[in-house]
Amino acid sequence: MNEVVLLMTCPDRKGIVARTTMLLYGMNANVLNLEQHVEGTGQFFMRIHADASGITISEMEFRAHTAALASELSGRLSLHYPETVQRVAILVTREDACLWELLLKHRSGELRGEVRMIVSNHQGLRPIAESFGIPFHYLPVTPETRDAQEEQVRALLRAESIELVVLARYMQILSPAFVAEYAGRIINIHHGFLPAFKGSRPYHRAWERGVKIIGATAHYVTENLDEGPIIEQDVISVSHQHSVAEMIHRGRDIERRVLATAVQAHLEHRIILHNNRTIIFHP
Amino acid sequence: MNEVVLLMTCPDRKGIVARTTMLLYGMNANVLNLEQHVEGTGQFFMRIHADASGITISEMEFRAHTAALASELSGRLSLHYPETVQRVAILVTREDACLWELLLKHRSGELRGEVRMIVSNHQGLRPIAESFGIPFHYLPVTPETRDAQEEQVRALLRAESIELVVLARYMQILSPAFVAEYAGRIINIHHGFLPAFKGSRPYHRAWERGVKIIGATAHYVTENLDEGPIIEQDVISVSHQHSVAEMIHRGRDIERRVLATAVQAHLEHRIILHNNRTIIFHP
Amino acid sequence: MNEVVLLMTCPDRKGIVARTTMLLYGMNANVLNLEQHVEGTGQFFMRIHADASGITISEMEFRAHTAALASELSGRLSLHYPETVQRVAILVTREDACLWELLLKHRSGELRGEVRMIVSNHQGLRPIAESFGIPFHYLPVTPETRDAQEEQVRALLRAESIELVVLARYMQILSPAFVAEYAGRIINIHHGFLPAFKGSRPYHRAWERGVKIIGATAHYVTENLDEGPIIEQDVISVSHQHSVAEMIHRGRDIERRVLATAVQAHLEHRIILHNNRTIIFHP
Amino acid sequence: MNEVVLLMTCPDRKGIVARTTMLLYGMNANVLNLEQHVEGTGQFFMRIHADASGITISEMEFRAHTAALASELSGRLSLHYPETVQRVAILVTREDACLWELLLKHRSGELRGEVRMIVSNHQGLRPIAESFGIPFHYLPVTPETRDAQEEQVRALLRAESIELVVLARYMQILSPAFVAEYAGRIINIHHGFLPAFKGSRPYHRAWERGVKIIGATAHYVTENLDEGPIIEQDVISVSHQHSVAEMIHRGRDIERRVLATAVQAHLEHRIILHNNRTIIFHP
Repeated sequence: MNEVVLLMTCPDRKGIVARTTMLLYGMNANVLNLEQHVEGTGQFFMRIHADASGITISEMEFRAHTAALASELSGRLSLHYPETVQRVAILVTREDACLWELLLKHRSGELRGEVRMIVSNHQGLRPIAESFGIPFHYLPVTPETRDAQEEQVRALLRAESIELVVLARYMQILSPAFVAEYAGRIINIHHGFLPAFKGSRPYHRAWERGVKIIGATAHYVTENLDEGPIIEQDVISVSHQHSVAEMIHRGRDIERRVLATAVQAHLEHRIILHNNRTIIFHP
Repeated sequence: MNEVVLLMTCPDRKGIVARTTMLLYGMNANVLNLEQHVEGTGQFFMRIHADASGITISEMEFRAHTAALASELSGRLSLHYPETVQRVAILVTREDACLWELLLKHRSGELRGEVRMIVSNHQGLRPIAESFGIPFHYLPVTPETRDAQEEQVRALLRAESIELVVLARYMQILSPAFVAEYAGRIINIHHGFLPAFKGSRPYHRAWERGVKIIGATAHYVTENLDEGPIIEQDVISVSHQHSVAEMIHRGRDIERRVLATAVQAHLEHRIILHNNRTIIFHP
Repeated sequence: MNEVVLLMTCPDRKGIVARTTMLLYGMNANVLNLEQHVEGTGQFFMRIHADASGITISEMEFRAHTAALASELSGRLSLHYPETVQRVAILVTREDACLWELLLKHRSGELRGEVRMIVSNHQGLRPIAESFGIPFHYLPVTPETRDAQEEQVRALLRAESIELVVLARYMQILSPAFVAEYAGRIINIHHGFLPAFKGSRPYHRAWERGVKIIGATAHYVTENLDEGPIIEQDVISVSHQHSVAEMIHRGRDIERRVLATAVQAHLEHRIILHNNRTIIFHP
Repeated sequence: MNEVVLLMTCPDRKGIVARTTMLLYGMNANVLNLEQHVEGTGQFFMRIHADASGITISEMEFRAHTAALASELSGRLSLHYPETVQRVAILVTREDACLWELLLKHRSGELRGEVRMIVSNHQGLRPIAESFGIPFHYLPVTPETRDAQEEQVRALLRAESIELVVLARYMQILSPAFVAEYAGRIINIHHGFLPAFKGSRPYHRAWERGVKIIGATAHYVTENLDEGPIIEQDVISVSHQHSVAEMIHRGRDIERRVLATAVQAHLEHRIILHNNRTIIFHP
């Protein structure tokens, strides 16, 4: 491995940065990028991106050292190898704009990760999957078959050891068990500027309320619908002349951009989850 | 009068633009700027800004003609003279950023209107009023004196024939009677991106929710708190590193800009109110 | 034809709006959207979008009436039928982001027009064309064959009666004759914020200059390179941490958005060209 | 001193972060915020903000330690005490918007520094200075008295040990000697989006070119006019309907915001100058 990323959070005390960077220096790693801050609450957050090409110890030893550090600091520390491609599944229903964005950015090399499968409760987007040579799984669902269908989805994810699940306008609510299994690893795009317009038909409600700006929100999925930690948001101006249909058109550009940015931050190991909030380190 | 502005809304039918502009042409007026559209619902909206320097009939005749047209079209038509300076009152409490913005833009000529008075339930902003030579009325309020204090405020407004009331961070809720007296003529700034974070302490709640964008909303005041027709909104990015205090600082820049833009649109007669929504014609 | 759009510019005088809308009313058309203004220089500009379903006279008569009006006003007036699909050619070289954007927005119905062909001096983007079922013409070019290759391109455009040519990162300079043949009908995307960084390698030069914002510009092509009338511009923030390669990545999102917006404005007949400037009516 | 900021740049090598943070730890300081990166060119940049309340050694010893480190690394390291208020002079001519912004943000506590004087070649802005209780120096200038007047300005700055000079729309060009004396400590606001529209009358030229976005640029002043390192830029949309005068109005809001943001970054020691580019650490 030539590169390594450390994400770390713990209660603050003196010397944490020195301890951690000395540890890396002792292993012959070179820090390329470090961002650290202490929140007003006294919580310490840090991301280190290091050149690890000179490291001579084994990965197991490396992990042991960092785990010992985390334990000593009563914190959480995770170790990532940015060159290791993560396995991604995209779940969709009928809307294609977010799917196209993810696949095109993936192909152009802007989005890391390997899209191992596209899963849908509708057949409509199969041709897109096929044109990119990605397996497409059609798993239709009715109110009666919901649990069984979800079980099939999860079996597919497990079979491919999926590490990140992206809900790219997937119009089904996941069960608590599903959410728990992939805690901090399911990203959803909401087509509204949360916490305004939670729930369905946000553009219709935005029109009725007469807002002058609409937006979209990418967030990690938790048990509470539309309440998960926000990763990325963006907005666009609208005027009284825009009908709901035009808002939906304009909103699509925001949705796809916001979702792709959030997925990219996750795949580049730039996010720490802490108390239903996200710490997003700069790209 | 050298210039005139017409604002007009009615159910759509053929020939309205032709009828109205022929009327103006017949009076020897010259249309400088016209913006018109028909909403999907079949409602017609139009603003006309015309050079009226060549008009030979009296204002009374002019008003009679346009009133007859509005009546025939079962619509609402209002006539405005942009050169006539409107009488404005600004109500404040302790925050000074919005007040400064309005007064400075007023002085530089960017904001029409004449600020006839500043009313406050605190003494703190009196020096600002005095440095601009504007009468400052200090009307303290307690839960017990609320009704009486509001009556004093309204008496002041009436005494000066105030046409527009701007709540520039005035931390008091107006009674339904006050709101009704100045229907469509009270503009408030809410320091949140409505309809998210209605009510108090929006920045604290934005921090807790971990939003990545904060905003501000200027709206007409109606009986339902924070539910009035939105005039203008704007936003700014925030990150996990911003504390609530920093959000408040950053938010101030948005609040003052949004409020000044909304007041300007009102004073330039670029707003039609229709069913709790605003039609804002371009500047 | 159910709908009609008029674009009109002439020296201002009294009564033009009335004359024009009376003409439409007399033909039994209904104005849906009208935007008009007089510039400080005394030039009049107007766009009318009307429901023409009730018109009883022939298109030829309609054209005769409007031509007579334009002549009388010493102005330019053009008549468009928004339901008539315009024939578009897209010219590309190697970059695919703008091409994808145009084709996807076209497929989703957000972009009017019919893409009749994609022409390129490289083979690389052929698969994209084929996946959308659009004819792809590969016309390689060397410094020696430049004139002949351009002649082939123009022959293709003529054969298909192309009405709009979109240069979606086409890395060849067009001859004055080509530009003249399609005056006001060739749109180019420049990957810089014009007039800064005219010419080649704008991102490299932006990096060297240390700008904090990069942009893109869509413009009509004229004889003077990068000097044509600007249709649309947009920008994105960059920081010192962004390498040239990252600027190029980030810039792509702006380029494709700006180009699609400009093409859409053209196809919706919302642009008047006047003295190397564009008047863009609101969508 | 309770807080300290280190700014540092040097050729990259292994262990720099560890060395520096160990040094701080050894002195009993606590790192609150650290941002570091290595540019593709191999140059290392770092900013450390630390709680220094526990430091027991003297400031002189502290400075000796860090100077030794910088020397060993062949780099530049500067030490700052954020609680020490910097002495600022603002130079103006006639435009007041930037001056108001700086003074109001200063008063509200958003902008550190102490404004020791306002210098102008016109009398017009004296009342503003007086209302804030800041000494105002009127030093008129003609082409003949240019050198002498500048000498007077510099004498004033020296007499008050001014550390930062802000050109808030000061319409005079500084001599190379002046610029050299305050290298990296003079910030200018240019009312255009550099490098477009260098020189005078940028709004007029923006109007003529028909750009759809205008901007402003704050930069350090160097010998080459409008070529100094850019600190901050921002933009705003304009349309064909905006006259030059309206562009000037709209531009003012950008100018004042951009200048205040740049001054704030400088006063918070968040800028490293390197090869005519700025490294701006996050607020």
